[in-house]
Amino acid sequence: MTHEAGIPLGIRFKLLSDTPQDSAAQVVSDVVVGDYRDLETLRAFARGCDVITFDHEHVPTEHLRALEADGIPVRPGPDALVHAQDKGVMRARLDAIGIPCPRHRIVADPEDVVRFAAEGDGFPVVLKTVRGGYDGKGVWVVETAEEAADPFRAGVPVLAEEKVDYVRELAANVVRSPHGQAVAYPVVESRQVNGVCDTVIAPAPDLDESLALRAEEMALRIAKELGVVGHLAVELFQTRDGRVLVNELAMRPHNSGHWSQDGAITSQFANHVRAVLDLPLGDPRPRAKWTVMVNVLGGDYPDMYSAYLHCMARDPKLKIHMYGKDVKPGRKVGHVNTYGDDLDDVLDRARHAAGYLRGTITE
Amino acid sequence: MTHEAGIPLGIRFKLLSDTPQDSAAQVVSDVVVGDYRDLETLRAFARGCDVITFDHEHVPTEHLRALEADGIPVRPGPDALVHAQDKGVMRARLDAIGIPCPRHRIVADPEDVVRFAAEGDGFPVVLKTVRGGYDGKGVWVVETAEEAADPFRAGVPVLAEEKVDYVRELAANVVRSPHGQAVAYPVVESRQVNGVCDTVIAPAPDLDESLALRAEEMALRIAKELGVVGHLAVELFQTRDGRVLVNELAMRPHNSGHWSQDGAITSQFANHVRAVLDLPLGDPRPRAKWTVMVNVLGGDYPDMYSAYLHCMARDPKLKIHMYGKDVKPGRKVGHVNTYGDDLDDVLDRARHAAGYLRGTITE
Repeated sequence: MTHEAGIPLGIRFKLLSDTPQDSAAQVVSDVVVGDYRDLETLRAFARGCDVITFDHEHVPTEHLRALEADGIPVRPGPDALVHAQDKGVMRARLDAIGIPCPRHRIVADPEDVVRFAAEGDGFPVVLKTVRGGYDGKGVWVVETAEEAADPFRAGVPVLAEEKVDYVRELAANVVRSPHGQAVAYPVVESRQVNGVCDTVIAPAPDLDESLALRAEEMALRIAKELGVVGHLAVELFQTRDGRVLVNELAMRPHNSGHWSQDGAITSQFANHVRAVLDLPLGDPRPRAKWTVMVNVLGGDYPDMYSAYLHCMARDPKLKIHMYGKDVKPGRKVGHVNTYGDDLDDVLDRARHAAGYLRGTITE
Repeated sequence: MTHEAGIPLGIRFKLLSDTPQDSAAQVVSDVVVGDYRDLETLRAFARGCDVITFDHEHVPTEHLRALEADGIPVRPGPDALVHAQDKGVMRARLDAIGIPCPRHRIVADPEDVVRFAAEGDGFPVVLKTVRGGYDGKGVWVVETAEEAADPFRAGVPVLAEEKVDYVRELAANVVRSPHGQAVAYPVVESRQVNGVCDTVIAPAPDLDESLALRAEEMALRIAKELGVVGHLAVELFQTRDGRVLVNELAMRPHNSGHWSQDGAITSQFANHVRAVLDLPLGDPRPRAKWTVMVNVLGGDYPDMYSAYLHCMARDPKLKIHMYGKDVKPGRKVGHVNTYGDDLDDVLDRARHAAGYLRGTITE
């Protein structure tokens, strides 16, 4: 999707891909297949690149420092990206700059989790490995010391957090350039199912204007203080008592910003490309009153193409975005966007199409 | 741009390209470099393709018939495409189905041009070689028998046409699928400079509704009668006496439809892909009150990238589409789209950006 956004500007990508089957490798011309964890692979790949950016956060921080030392611009740079790689570093830094987070601390062992619970409102407690989590993986909600044993088995530091009493999840998406220019997308509502993002509504319905502004300012402040270049997604809890607390950070175009492909004047992908190249940023404002994104998860049928017929015929305004991935049950293989003036209608259309593609709706 | 539109649907292209530097070859992964005039090249290329389509009309009709005989779906097929390849065939066919055209006939030599002039309102007369014309090439406006000598030198049949007294040029863009589903984009105004499309305004300002409807119906009828599959652009003259006459046909996404990338619910490229695959077509209606496209021609400076800075900073809503071509004076190397509620503003912004990229505006 970033390649797609680069084409109109004449921006050509060279891709380092795990396998020749990766989504991006199917559409980018210049592909090197290699392991992003291997420094020499990265160095050989980076030669001749004007700038390096990412579609995930897993490239080791120390390797990115080595590339920077070689003179290759890395955007976002390792000193920013580490906050999206390591939840312990992220929490410490957000505390230091006064950004509200759930109560948290690094815990040593299951007994320490019991102490952490006692320091606040007791169990349940959320435990997260500081590195390697994704889409609900690396996250546990525990009620007892016994249940708290699992997260420690990986040998990675474990972060304990209060289980926040939230009314819903929001996301504040911003983009920042090396020049320091920044733009904020409208704050969206993000609905999760089994820890995986299911639906995003832009803008978040019935969101108090001052709270929306506070969330946008928070995201812009994080981007500035952490020196982010490119897209920053700040996943937030809206609490029952009217606060917003930071849940997670992502420094790349993010699922909570996919609506912008069809719903904003400039998509998150186009603005990420512009930021990474230090070009002036595009207008992030919405083009429609409501835009809804629903993720398409894999179902029992490996072929989704034949479902296009029904979906497209039923809704000529539907926007389908598939990633070329093999369909496996529960795997994110694409998303759909819909937009319009009537939120119920827009939601229905997106849900129907995503369900039909997955195979859970058959008419 | 067709590749760009295919990415979200997971449609993968295999490209036959004249050179590795062609615009499409820079962004498509699977490129075969070869000569589209050579049947064996075409045959080897076509093996394994689900369907063949085009971004120009120059593949010889008889080669396309051979591919069809091999069992490869060609869309649009040769029997339709010949009308966009041969202006003589096109005029004869439009006459036969009663579509209004400028007065015309095939002429044998310069003396015959004098007779053609005398049959109507006299000189000037427009002469066109029936094959191979493009962007004003292969077209002559002549005032005398002496001036009429040039077009006959190529040894290609020459079509004479009255020089229409038109108030402006319009274009009716439609897309048709093998199923026979068809959609019509709003009729646009197309302004030419030196025979090359300069500006397109969607929809055509102050166009009488019944005339717009007549133009759309005419384009839909041509698509149906000629068996067009994919995008059909019908370039029209709006005459001083309130008629619309067909000037040219193009059977591929067309310059007069580029506005739809940012101005329509479904772009001409997305709908061309959908038609060629016999998928249901997307909604062609505009997303903005006015959308303007201005072509970017090459100027004296080979580097347009540095001009992005000023253009993007000045207009955060600007949409730039560059083709990755070497910049040569007068060559179409890209276009810009703008949209909004105020036509003067939308026109100004597009003209400024295109002029700044070309280097004819410097502030």
